[in-house]
Amino acid sequence: MIGASRNPQKIGHQVLRNLIEGGFPKERVFPINPHAEEILGLKCYPSVKDVPGDVDLAVICVPAPLVMNVVKDCAEKGVKALAVITAGFGEVGNVEAERQLVEFARSHGMRLLGPNIVGICDTVNSMNASFCQALPPKGDIAFITQSGALAIALVGWTIEERIGLSDLVSVGNKADVDDADLLEFFSHDPHTKAIAMYIEGIEDGRRFIETAKKASKLKPIVAIKAGRSRRGAAAAASHTGSLAGMDAIYDAAFKECGIIRAYTFDQLFDWCIALASQPLPKKRGTVIITNGGGAGVMATDACEDWDVELMDIPEDLAEKFRKYMPPFGSTRNPIDLTGMATREKYEGATEEAFRDPRVGSVIVLYCHTAITDPMDVADGIISVVEKLKPDKPITVSFIGGKETAEASDKLREHKIPCYPTPERAVAAMSALYKRAKYLGVLAES
Amino acid sequence: MIGASRNPQKIGHQVLRNLIEGGFPKERVFPINPHAEEILGLKCYPSVKDVPGDVDLAVICVPAPLVMNVVKDCAEKGVKALAVITAGFGEVGNVEAERQLVEFARSHGMRLLGPNIVGICDTVNSMNASFCQALPPKGDIAFITQSGALAIALVGWTIEERIGLSDLVSVGNKADVDDADLLEFFSHDPHTKAIAMYIEGIEDGRRFIETAKKASKLKPIVAIKAGRSRRGAAAAASHTGSLAGMDAIYDAAFKECGIIRAYTFDQLFDWCIALASQPLPKKRGTVIITNGGGAGVMATDACEDWDVELMDIPEDLAEKFRKYMPPFGSTRNPIDLTGMATREKYEGATEEAFRDPRVGSVIVLYCHTAITDPMDVADGIISVVEKLKPDKPITVSFIGGKETAEASDKLREHKIPCYPTPERAVAAMSALYKRAKYLGVLAES
Repeated sequence: MIGASRNPQKIGHQVLRNLIEGGFPKERVFPINPHAEEILGLKCYPSVKDVPGDVDLAVICVPAPLVMNVVKDCAEKGVKALAVITAGFGEVGNVEAERQLVEFARSHGMRLLGPNIVGICDTVNSMNASFCQALPPKGDIAFITQSGALAIALVGWTIEERIGLSDLVSVGNKADVDDADLLEFFSHDPHTKAIAMYIEGIEDGRRFIETAKKASKLKPIVAIKAGRSRRGAAAAASHTGSLAGMDAIYDAAFKECGIIRAYTFDQLFDWCIALASQPLPKKRGTVIITNGGGAGVMATDACEDWDVELMDIPEDLAEKFRKYMPPFGSTRNPIDLTGMATREKYEGATEEAFRDPRVGSVIVLYCHTAITDPMDVADGIISVVEKLKPDKPITVSFIGGKETAEASDKLREHKIPCYPTPERAVAAMSALYKRAKYLGVLAES
Repeated sequence: MIGASRNPQKIGHQVLRNLIEGGFPKERVFPINPHAEEILGLKCYPSVKDVPGDVDLAVICVPAPLVMNVVKDCAEKGVKALAVITAGFGEVGNVEAERQLVEFARSHGMRLLGPNIVGICDTVNSMNASFCQALPPKGDIAFITQSGALAIALVGWTIEERIGLSDLVSVGNKADVDDADLLEFFSHDPHTKAIAMYIEGIEDGRRFIETAKKASKLKPIVAIKAGRSRRGAAAAASHTGSLAGMDAIYDAAFKECGIIRAYTFDQLFDWCIALASQPLPKKRGTVIITNGGGAGVMATDACEDWDVELMDIPEDLAEKFRKYMPPFGSTRNPIDLTGMATREKYEGATEEAFRDPRVGSVIVLYCHTAITDPMDVADGIISVVEKLKPDKPITVSFIGGKETAEASDKLREHKIPCYPTPERAVAAMSALYKRAKYLGVLAES
């Protein structure tokens, strides 16, 4: 931690505190500050060169004019990886200093993340080397973001929505390490099952496309490309200095690479959660199981919006579904178990849908009622999935706000993607179909 | 409460319990059950005719074959309003019994809500005459829904999201009282400032349009029309027996009536919250104030999606904004106060935007940072709004999940619509512009 500070107002203090509070082993943190003996209970060193043993990563928080000097020290020490949190380079027109920094780093065998980053939140190693106040929950989604402010803000969001991340990396000015490098890394990272990106602009389009193509064969990638509109592009230019470029070009490039494009943060993480946890559908033909007609209608509309094909239920399958509903239920897709549906009915109907080889995928909707315990229904769905380990995807929506929050969390903990509205469950299913199509595993009728 | 039951499994017990637990005065509740002396501590009466004094509303939960008899009793007693929770009429093909019921009620000067409803949640009178387990929070949005299951499920949602309702009315089979009647009622209801609807189908289109036109001159109306897709329409037909009809016809009718069409429950309530609390914009020209460039870019893109016109900031106004940001901030719209923005900066910039007569409306974005207390920023925004009482609308987004939840709630309590993502704040602003345009109060440039 080069530029560790005793002053709690300084970023060099906050990052050190975050590192310690995040659970990273204290004995592996070395604050560098030539004017302090000790900060936050850790012994300080005057220079990185004084640190005993090898240094895996140098996190740099010193003021911009001092960065080059400490980077030179890092070179002498043999450090290979630099995360430069310090701002005041390319983003404020200080382009030459940034160029020199990168040139020096590269010519000394170092890679440099930043400058102008919020830092790195690596949940696998409990390493919060950032000025995010907390680590996101542990999980298997890697999030690469060009906006630092959004990174910080979204950590609270991931905690509230229980979105598990393997890593959160703020790329800042992307002077050296860029999106392509990180895609390459995360596509091989065993802790990462899906990659989420917030992009304002990409400099080296050709390299990005080449790398992303390879990466997306290995891992699903979902990206927001902000600065879509004329004005949005101008705003992005003044924010990160990115050439947001013609939106249609990004659109085409994403399609070519198999990057699924999201437009909101809900979509970005909703889809990654499904892609990280669910097997891909091998065929069209989705069955919706619901206890509420209205939710079924909303989901059916959403299926048309999101190009998720509902299956026409063959009579023999309808007959099976009929066992799990009163006479006034419906076996036309959506399968309406009615408000009287208990855990057993959900379990039975979901199992039939999973077992029937004509069914491509399953969407289960639960509207909270006065007579059911949502946790029971969740347990039923979990037990079917764990028993059958189906090779087809399921997405779920539990509608009921406060009343269904716990059940919804439990489903997510068991790797069953659950969302608060029917259309989000449908849109997540659509992302699975998009990826199945891209990878060529989907039999098109 | 006709059909009050001692059996906690029965709806006739649950509705009575909900009524009492919801806070409705016990001395004004009269359970009717010829076989019981007392239920839940209340004296039972053998028939509605035995109730002392006048009866304002009969809530009916007896089995379908008995409904006609108790309705006849109601006629003798002089009851004017019936809410028939009992199912088993038109929705299961029992059309003739339903017709007879309505004919009898009407010919005896009674109006009938239902049958096949979840009930009525009237927060103004703390009357939970429904099988929703709790009342929604008190507020000024009336919610009319054709789906009972969604009504129950959404109560938990309104509690979690702090969406205040004046009333929640499940319309069930709409055998007598229908959407048009309720629109007429709520458009004159002093407790209601906006009307939210979930519609699957409308029978008497002509009357609906005539009534809705008048109602929407008085109150903003936002509606979801489900069953948009071919399959969704079929699902609606099997759910509520509605002829969902050609979607384009609904679309045209809504436009004619000034009904703002929503596609998700987020939109439905997001927009009602803004419409119920904010003055309408008198002119185009929106200013976005942000502390995060990325959030600003996302909002700018959304403005194009939602047809919200961003203002080109004149140099004299830019000069004023400059007082509230460091040199690396931006006075191009979005106004980027940078991550260093404190309460004072937000307050100052928001005040400038409100005071400038060229500004039509204001969107304020806050990305949670390590150095700001979101509650401070919220207080700043609240104090400006309360000081200036501006005649132009504001919508807000606080991005930070758990970290910004309290601040967001406080803004909502102070009638400042706050949303968890920039695009939702923009979409809500768009709803205000739509209504301003419909009412002819918007000066188009």
